[in-house]
Amino acid sequence: MPADTVGKTITCKAAVAWEAGKDLSIEDIEVAPPKAHEVRIQIYYTGVCHTDAYTLSGKDPEGAFPVVLGHEGAGVVESVGEGVTNVKPGDHVVALYTPECKECKFCLSGKTNLCGKIRVTQGKGVMPDGTSRFKCKGKDLLHYMGTSTFSQYTVVADISVVALTDKAPMDKTCLLGCGITTGYGAAVITANVEKGSNVAVFGAGCVGLSVIQGAVKNGAGRVIVVDVNDKKKQWAEQFGATEFVNPTKLSGQTIQEKLIEMTDGGLDYTFDCTGNVQVMRAALEACHKGWGQSIIIGVAPAGAEISTRPFQLVTGRVWRGCAFGGVKGRTQLPGLVQDYLDGKLKVDEFITHRQPLTKINDAFQDMKAGDCIRCVVDMKVGN
Amino acid sequence: MPADTVGKTITCKAAVAWEAGKDLSIEDIEVAPPKAHEVRIQIYYTGVCHTDAYTLSGKDPEGAFPVVLGHEGAGVVESVGEGVTNVKPGDHVVALYTPECKECKFCLSGKTNLCGKIRVTQGKGVMPDGTSRFKCKGKDLLHYMGTSTFSQYTVVADISVVALTDKAPMDKTCLLGCGITTGYGAAVITANVEKGSNVAVFGAGCVGLSVIQGAVKNGAGRVIVVDVNDKKKQWAEQFGATEFVNPTKLSGQTIQEKLIEMTDGGLDYTFDCTGNVQVMRAALEACHKGWGQSIIIGVAPAGAEISTRPFQLVTGRVWRGCAFGGVKGRTQLPGLVQDYLDGKLKVDEFITHRQPLTKINDAFQDMKAGDCIRCVVDMKVGN
Repeated sequence: MPADTVGKTITCKAAVAWEAGKDLSIEDIEVAPPKAHEVRIQIYYTGVCHTDAYTLSGKDPEGAFPVVLGHEGAGVVESVGEGVTNVKPGDHVVALYTPECKECKFCLSGKTNLCGKIRVTQGKGVMPDGTSRFKCKGKDLLHYMGTSTFSQYTVVADISVVALTDKAPMDKTCLLGCGITTGYGAAVITANVEKGSNVAVFGAGCVGLSVIQGAVKNGAGRVIVVDVNDKKKQWAEQFGATEFVNPTKLSGQTIQEKLIEMTDGGLDYTFDCTGNVQVMRAALEACHKGWGQSIIIGVAPAGAEISTRPFQLVTGRVWRGCAFGGVKGRTQLPGLVQDYLDGKLKVDEFITHRQPLTKINDAFQDMKAGDCIRCVVDMKVGN
Repeated sequence: MPADTVGKTITCKAAVAWEAGKDLSIEDIEVAPPKAHEVRIQIYYTGVCHTDAYTLSGKDPEGAFPVVLGHEGAGVVESVGEGVTNVKPGDHVVALYTPECKECKFCLSGKTNLCGKIRVTQGKGVMPDGTSRFKCKGKDLLHYMGTSTFSQYTVVADISVVALTDKAPMDKTCLLGCGITTGYGAAVITANVEKGSNVAVFGAGCVGLSVIQGAVKNGAGRVIVVDVNDKKKQWAEQFGATEFVNPTKLSGQTIQEKLIEMTDGGLDYTFDCTGNVQVMRAALEACHKGWGQSIIIGVAPAGAEISTRPFQLVTGRVWRGCAFGGVKGRTQLPGLVQDYLDGKLKVDEFITHRQPLTKINDAFQDMKAGDCIRCVVDMKVGN
């Protein structure tokens, strides 16, 4: 039986970012019905990620306001627009900030998970037809990353959503919408870490811990974690790291020197999960001459640049990066969920904090505290 | 019949670099017999390469004097030290500045052509036992890149030499000791350019033209050559380039913007053959989002650094490099020579200038002129 909201505007609660640098504001917003090739989702749970905080801070040069943030959300399809065939009302879904149209030059290349179909409009904070589905106090609100999961209802392009088995709880699957998939995919898909190889992971937050998990899954030999926060040692070990180094506690050595010494020449694979360009350089330079690969995952501040001597590359190191771990959301996320259900992929362990929608600003505070890996926000609690 | 020089010091002509920034000086030098695992070679022909000029200029921070430069040489084995099994007196050989021991961690990795066995002593300008085989006016001369081909006789480690069929003329095979192999290998081995892919080559000297040749061999679609010298257009086309762009003649566009426009999104592979770090950046940024790979081949000035926004890598571009084209000299050079003999690899076409040893300084001048691709020096003419 279709919901009686089909075809109608829904009024619901959302956390609105009215301007940069201010707290989010819980508002009643109006969410228009989905147009052709669009899907309206009732969001049940959303994670809060550093990228949301980065845009909210005003440092993101492409950030625009007012906007409904959030890009790590799971929920249930409420209704679909004309021509939608990949999901149907009632489906349990995760929103995809990296869409997958399966027909553009990128999707057909077999070489990347980046999809070009709606890149321009997604970047501008609007739906593919150039307009918004959100209104509050008579004003249009912008969409964010094609997902806007900080609303009880959101509208996304049909290529920006994947249906998942309803056996997987949505307070867990939401985290596959960004952090876990980003790190795990970087190790398993982008780097495709080889059995027995030595890996270093810079930054042991949600993404870094997921890299560890991916490296361990692929049979890595040593997995060395680098973090300035000693409390992360225990976390890193829980996910399978073999060693931990705090770079602020080295005497007279750079972290790249330390790692090269520890591994007799450097790492086979390194991962930057910090977004700090100096750390990215260290991660590259800690790679083994001849074949070491460094993968940039973190998002750097606007205008920041990475640098190194070209000799580092001429002598065989490879510098690369990925978004969403190189994972194709519609094709590959169902497999990750199955791995989770089969006990092969840790997800529950990442959740250290929970908040209701009404306290979403506390979730941002939680994230900035050193003891938080992921805070999941229950979007059903809006009053 | 062994040469009557076996076991004795040979006095011969060599071009000695007494100090940075000065012309080479033709001198009588004494070349000691090869020790264990060393090979003494009578050099017949040598190329002159920008790396020799770079070291001679004094800008190479690792350059030390007095030294016998030269690293692109072919000749005949005069005698071998104890334990040498891979070459014998009379063999036609090419000296290898990238040795191949077939037993170190690097050689066994299957992932790189860089060999670690004699790296430290080679870098210091001495033989593996820490001493020199060259003397002039009572002074030891340093070796260079493990080859020192600017002498009528030189001594190299046995892992730094490969025997080639005597059907191939040595005034041609010498160029496989650096320039041609470096560019060709970068396209065919390091990048392994895929059939139909679009390639841009920055700099159309010996290395750049060799990249074109490699890309064409692998079936590249478009091969766009970028050079500030319009005269290189004709050269580029002779080697199979499909288009030529002079970046100094663009109006209001960077070269990366121009290339992205020309190719609807960017190149699949780009190659820097200039050593200019700004060009290296342009080469990376001209790559196609999602999969484009940029390969650094050129040697940058001391202290120069490459930079870009990490977003370039996060969105799928790959930055790498190679030395000697990723080619394993002892294993793979005989195959390249066979390709040359079979008419599948152009070599003769690179030789635009010739000089006798007595005029080697003119060869350096030739190289700096825009109409020279390679000048081959006849080492037999020393008086």
